Amino acid sequence: MKRTFQIPVSASDTLTAEVLNRWNSLTKPPGSLGRLEEAVLQLALQQGRSRPVLASKRMYIFCGDHGVTAEGVSAFPSEVTRQMAANFIRGGAAINVLCREAGIEPVIVDAGVNGEPIPGALHRRVASGGTRNFAVEPAMTRAHAELAIAAGADLAHERMDDIRGVGEMGIGNTTSASALLCAFTGVDPVEAAGPGTGLAAHGVARKAEVIARALQLHQPDRSDPVGILAQFGGFEIAMMAGFLLGSAEGRIPVMMDGFISCAAALVAARLNTRVLDYLHFSHQSAEPAHARMLAELGPARPLLQLSMRLGEGSGAALGISLLGNALALYDQMATFAQAAVSGAAE
Amino acid sequence: MKRTFQIPVSASDTLTAEVLNRWNSLTKPPGSLGRLEEAVLQLALQQGRSRPVLASKRMYIFCGDHGVTAEGVSAFPSEVTRQMAANFIRGGAAINVLCREAGIEPVIVDAGVNGEPIPGALHRRVASGGTRNFAVEPAMTRAHAELAIAAGADLAHERMDDIRGVGEMGIGNTTSASALLCAFTGVDPVEAAGPGTGLAAHGVARKAEVIARALQLHQPDRSDPVGILAQFGGFEIAMMAGFLLGSAEGRIPVMMDGFISCAAALVAARLNTRVLDYLHFSHQSAEPAHARMLAELGPARPLLQLSMRLGEGSGAALGISLLGNALALYDQMATFAQAAVSGAAE
Repeated sequence: MKRTFQIPVSASDTLTAEVLNRWNSLTKPPGSLGRLEEAVLQLALQQGRSRPVLASKRMYIFCGDHGVTAEGVSAFPSEVTRQMAANFIRGGAAINVLCREAGIEPVIVDAGVNGEPIPGALHRRVASGGTRNFAVEPAMTRAHAELAIAAGADLAHERMDDIRGVGEMGIGNTTSASALLCAFTGVDPVEAAGPGTGLAAHGVARKAEVIARALQLHQPDRSDPVGILAQFGGFEIAMMAGFLLGSAEGRIPVMMDGFISCAAALVAARLNTRVLDYLHFSHQSAEPAHARMLAELGPARPLLQLSMRLGEGSGAALGISLLGNALALYDQMATFAQAAVSGAAE
Repeated sequence: MKRTFQIPVSASDTLTAEVLNRWNSLTKPPGSLGRLEEAVLQLALQQGRSRPVLASKRMYIFCGDHGVTAEGVSAFPSEVTRQMAANFIRGGAAINVLCREAGIEPVIVDAGVNGEPIPGALHRRVASGGTRNFAVEPAMTRAHAELAIAAGADLAHERMDDIRGVGEMGIGNTTSASALLCAFTGVDPVEAAGPGTGLAAHGVARKAEVIARALQLHQPDRSDPVGILAQFGGFEIAMMAGFLLGSAEGRIPVMMDGFISCAAALVAARLNTRVLDYLHFSHQSAEPAHARMLAELGPARPLLQLSMRLGEGSGAALGISLLGNALALYDQMATFAQAAVSGAAE
């Protein structure tokens, strides 16, 4: 990897003490807001201030096609990537509804969709369309993998957000994400492959077999994350990985979505592990290997477990909404002194 | 129990088919919104219409004091019940912030707080103040238990809401809720007692010992739920139980909160088990016995697990917010036909 990422340390004893002091001054038993208290502390450390802000919120949805769909690994045909990207632009998809509900601006990124560039999307392709079929050849060249990471990092630096979510659309991309999990961690393809958008059991078995064959073909080298990304990745995953790294450079917190976004985080963490300090994990999805993926990322402890498996950033939007609730509590609750409430007796 | 509760059946094959048809027509893989899809179906069945509504939302916060605090079973002194009720009225508590965030109107109910009625609260007391110490005598008379249930049911019928949440404030009420769990299910007090608002280990042990002593004293009869409520209950728990039953009579869905509200649901379900069809369960709290309590209620599967242990309705407010997101998806997403998106290939 030519580009390196300079990510600031987020840990701060001073800031931690300031945030805990404020939480403990508010009219509630200490720690009784559980994960909400932890999430605000993490946000404060990421933004480097004891009173963090969530005014400007954007959801970046990276779209890309996957050559591996030729192997029959998805319940939906490839053209759905393009159709759904158009649906995002028109505002009719789940992610549009959730972004409206939470005051988040959606940004649709064409990272490598088959055919002409998607009208109305940010055009950030580094190749003409989707990836090649990784069951028979590398998904992309190393040069393209590096360009996609760099394009994602550049996008991260273009605008300043208080928080951003990441989502994706790419028919076939659970196969790519599962293959990346196998390549980076040695997990068996049978454990890594799941139903994705809704494969039946025989489809899941075929998916595992395709991944096993590809691992055999490419012989991934765990010391070479960009090489692994080029072998198995998608352009949307590569660009998202760069976006996570660029966001962390700028101290901008990112709310992760489900299985695919975590595959991007896996790539990013292999390039600079400090990126993890700037990530929030919104949910554990219904994709069976997501738990294993999360364990590899810290381990990450997601906020929600709602058996969702849609992608698009749908879990991330809910996560940002919940984080907003947590910050409102931190900002607006009365203190024990203001409300003349007695403290603990013990 | 003199008053009986007439609760309509919520199950409907026709409505279920209508709701599933709509979910499956929307631009997403079938079932991919997981628990959100299930929650909207449940809401539709409760309201008895395929396009449910969440316009009018209220949070009823039942406040009451507990004589058992004389045994040293709480981390906070009894006067905090009154101080926090005043904080609710002034708008400075966690539940006020979360209600503002979710467009929920809070209603503070004085169900039996020590001292003068709380200014600004709905005055629904059936006795002069809090309960007696159930470690040495019944918490309330049978007549008071029946009056409190009836007062809760009457309150439920006073106004029509599309959904309502329930919350509570009552120093000592985890001890009452744990004792009710033991009395109704035979769970051991050591398993049922937890830290509540923040007891240290020796305090939890004392709490378990107080409950064990009270069980020995009162010899609860599981075939007499009102008798058990009178022995161990709180006025806020009794009134909430009646409120749940009255809401179910009126087909008004209720979003439950944590451990205490589930103790009220346990009482209500013993009086008419069909009440459970009208309840949503927002979260599993950090109180260790809450999982056991939820198992007794259906079993109930809460939407959130955030290690919260505040009460007040804080989890219920988050649950209503999440349910609102789910309904927005159901109402606003484009269909496959509208968006010209291809369906599943398999």
